[in-house]
Amino acid sequence: MKRNTAPARGMRDLLPAQVEVRDHCAAVIQRAYARFGYQRVETPALEHIGLLTGSGGGDNEKLIYKVLKRGDKLDLAKAQGADDLVDFGLRYDLTVPLGRFYAEHAAELPQPFRAVQIGPVWRAERPQRGRYRQFTQCDIDILGEASELAEVELIQATVTALSALGLTGFTVRLNDRRLLAAMVSSCGFDAAALPAVFITVDKLDKVGLDGVVKELTESGHPAEAVAALGRTLEAVLAPGALADSPLPESVPLDDEGVAVRERLRTIRRLAAAGLPEGATLGFDPTLVRGMGYYTGTLFEVGMEGYPFSIAGGGRYDGMIGGLTGKDVPACGFSIGFERVVLILEEQGLTTTDRPKRLAVLHADAVPADEVVAAATALRAEGHAVATLKARKKVGKQLDELQAQGFDGFAVLEAGAPGAPEVREFRAS
Amino acid sequence: MKRNTAPARGMRDLLPAQVEVRDHCAAVIQRAYARFGYQRVETPALEHIGLLTGSGGGDNEKLIYKVLKRGDKLDLAKAQGADDLVDFGLRYDLTVPLGRFYAEHAAELPQPFRAVQIGPVWRAERPQRGRYRQFTQCDIDILGEASELAEVELIQATVTALSALGLTGFTVRLNDRRLLAAMVSSCGFDAAALPAVFITVDKLDKVGLDGVVKELTESGHPAEAVAALGRTLEAVLAPGALADSPLPESVPLDDEGVAVRERLRTIRRLAAAGLPEGATLGFDPTLVRGMGYYTGTLFEVGMEGYPFSIAGGGRYDGMIGGLTGKDVPACGFSIGFERVVLILEEQGLTTTDRPKRLAVLHADAVPADEVVAAATALRAEGHAVATLKARKKVGKQLDELQAQGFDGFAVLEAGAPGAPEVREFRAS
Repeated sequence: MKRNTAPARGMRDLLPAQVEVRDHCAAVIQRAYARFGYQRVETPALEHIGLLTGSGGGDNEKLIYKVLKRGDKLDLAKAQGADDLVDFGLRYDLTVPLGRFYAEHAAELPQPFRAVQIGPVWRAERPQRGRYRQFTQCDIDILGEASELAEVELIQATVTALSALGLTGFTVRLNDRRLLAAMVSSCGFDAAALPAVFITVDKLDKVGLDGVVKELTESGHPAEAVAALGRTLEAVLAPGALADSPLPESVPLDDEGVAVRERLRTIRRLAAAGLPEGATLGFDPTLVRGMGYYTGTLFEVGMEGYPFSIAGGGRYDGMIGGLTGKDVPACGFSIGFERVVLILEEQGLTTTDRPKRLAVLHADAVPADEVVAAATALRAEGHAVATLKARKKVGKQLDELQAQGFDGFAVLEAGAPGAPEVREFRAS
Repeated sequence: MKRNTAPARGMRDLLPAQVEVRDHCAAVIQRAYARFGYQRVETPALEHIGLLTGSGGGDNEKLIYKVLKRGDKLDLAKAQGADDLVDFGLRYDLTVPLGRFYAEHAAELPQPFRAVQIGPVWRAERPQRGRYRQFTQCDIDILGEASELAEVELIQATVTALSALGLTGFTVRLNDRRLLAAMVSSCGFDAAALPAVFITVDKLDKVGLDGVVKELTESGHPAEAVAALGRTLEAVLAPGALADSPLPESVPLDDEGVAVRERLRTIRRLAAAGLPEGATLGFDPTLVRGMGYYTGTLFEVGMEGYPFSIAGGGRYDGMIGGLTGKDVPACGFSIGFERVVLILEEQGLTTTDRPKRLAVLHADAVPADEVVAAATALRAEGHAVATLKARKKVGKQLDELQAQGFDGFAVLEAGAPGAPEVREFRAS
């Protein structure tokens, strides 16, 4: 009887060609980040459920896979609700576990600590095309560096890593949560309304200026403030363009605001010096970034020809303090690993840094020791060799092998010792 | 307030030096296996709970982390027991998911299919020193190859991979489940008693021959059979030695048994030809291997100076058929990844294939653009560079940096443009 052998709903199997692209991508990024002093750390997939649900992860906390308690700890009769049944959960991002990791191990780590993490996270989202419930995140973070050196390095390292993958045409957008707040406040919104206004402004590239104004109006914000913000947004930015200034001259800033603005200008100036050719860097006063934990600088990287961002991040100085009771400045940048893999697959990645993959076809009549000897001889010549039985219709078999990613083949006859002749597939 | 920031019970965080050894280990093994035509595949961490609990995994099935159903599917009021509350589970090994993977994707894969898998598995075992509830397995499997070519290649590939790590002194032990059965049967045990006898014989290297005889006697097996098996075991093998023959001449074999014995001799002869210097290969008529799904050849690799095996595997021709309804020959070899990592850490791994890690120390007075310029210049020279603020007690800081794995340092003074001088740590 054939059983259902599909992966669990929303999950996926990765075939050899897919793993090859992903491994290549991870290795290139990892090598680039190592040059900037980032060290890979790993945390377990499972965390205490209390850490995950109390982490300020917003909607993501609703998507946590929760793990049933085991043994005596599981008491169905006494359980009041689902929360009494679980003790662990699968991590939904890499930032919350990194905060816990740093709080636990800071004494053993260099200061500031530069972490790179590439690993799976899990979210029980409604399955949809191209979205999976297990996916890979790829983050770098600097913990313990308050100065703008952190931001400059994160931008340089991330754009360098993306370039090392052979991608080009990057646009890096910069903003600061505090300047965004000053700009929105100056239009007449209450401080309490800011988070809601940010969420709407974040939709600017999806719904346009009219859509943002409409949503703000329907949400009941003062009409005057909405109109003022509409004028301001229109003035600062044609969608897709980069601004030369962190925010309009008309926005009044206190001393701290002025310092933040100058800091952002410094970041732009220093980061621009290290960018690869063709990459542009500028301000985007409308840049919001969804996560609630950001406290300062915000950044996002777009790529020519793609409507979505491929990397993003910012400063989140409050999170570690929430775990340790002692504030630690923190800033991170995350590459959209799954998006980058899709782009590389679309562009047809050709890795040149691996040996030639050969299929050695042998008839049934060839003795096993001759098959082993031929494969060993070809491996000694530096090839990656897989032995296979020759089928009757060799032409069709060769087409299949080519489609499966073999680079060449050899046919083994009985009684012909030594390495067989390596042949190319016919042009397809 | 400081919260509990330890990893979940039985789990562990991996610090940079640990991840470096593990990544090196995985990359070397992966590169060696690629030479033998093995392709990496990945399956999700979560599987349908029904696949995991019906997989013949024996005691491991009791250790599965089970995931709570979500949304409307979770109905506490109607749940009769824990099984009604869960739908997914975390995989406890890589073999069961591979069987599902192959059953689902065989049409898209080369035949035979050579898979390599390196990834985490989870078991809710009682935490103990050196054992973790999340650990890495490292398996190769050939699916669809019935001939002894599979076994020969698995042995060559595994010993080649272990050698590539710089390890030496391997002993490869061979047996076949069917010869073991013939030997035990010939002593007078019922066919029905064989699985229980195997489990006891498997303890030979832990409890010795006397211990095995004692346990068999206490279990109520016929005294005559126990005595006969005791004599046979004593005859075939001094513990730790290798036998020249797959089983004693005195054991009667039917035609199939004779064929199996000749097949095992062929495997030994062919595999021995490709072994690295210093490795030995022979028969061990007492080799059992715990997993119930093995149907034929069994192998295990030991290493001089270590009391445990570092790799093991065998043929399991029945598993895929249980999923697809169509039998597929299958054979696999698993490297004890966590054990190998421990050995490499103990031996003090020095990877030579990475750039020099430099710490660039700068005083507060050095302007940010000079810090960025110096780091960029050193990276252009090929180094991996991390910038850090110089502390007042630089001597102590340098000692810490050396302990943290930096290879050298540079001190940056204000107003000195270009790449600073790279210096070595004093000998420790």
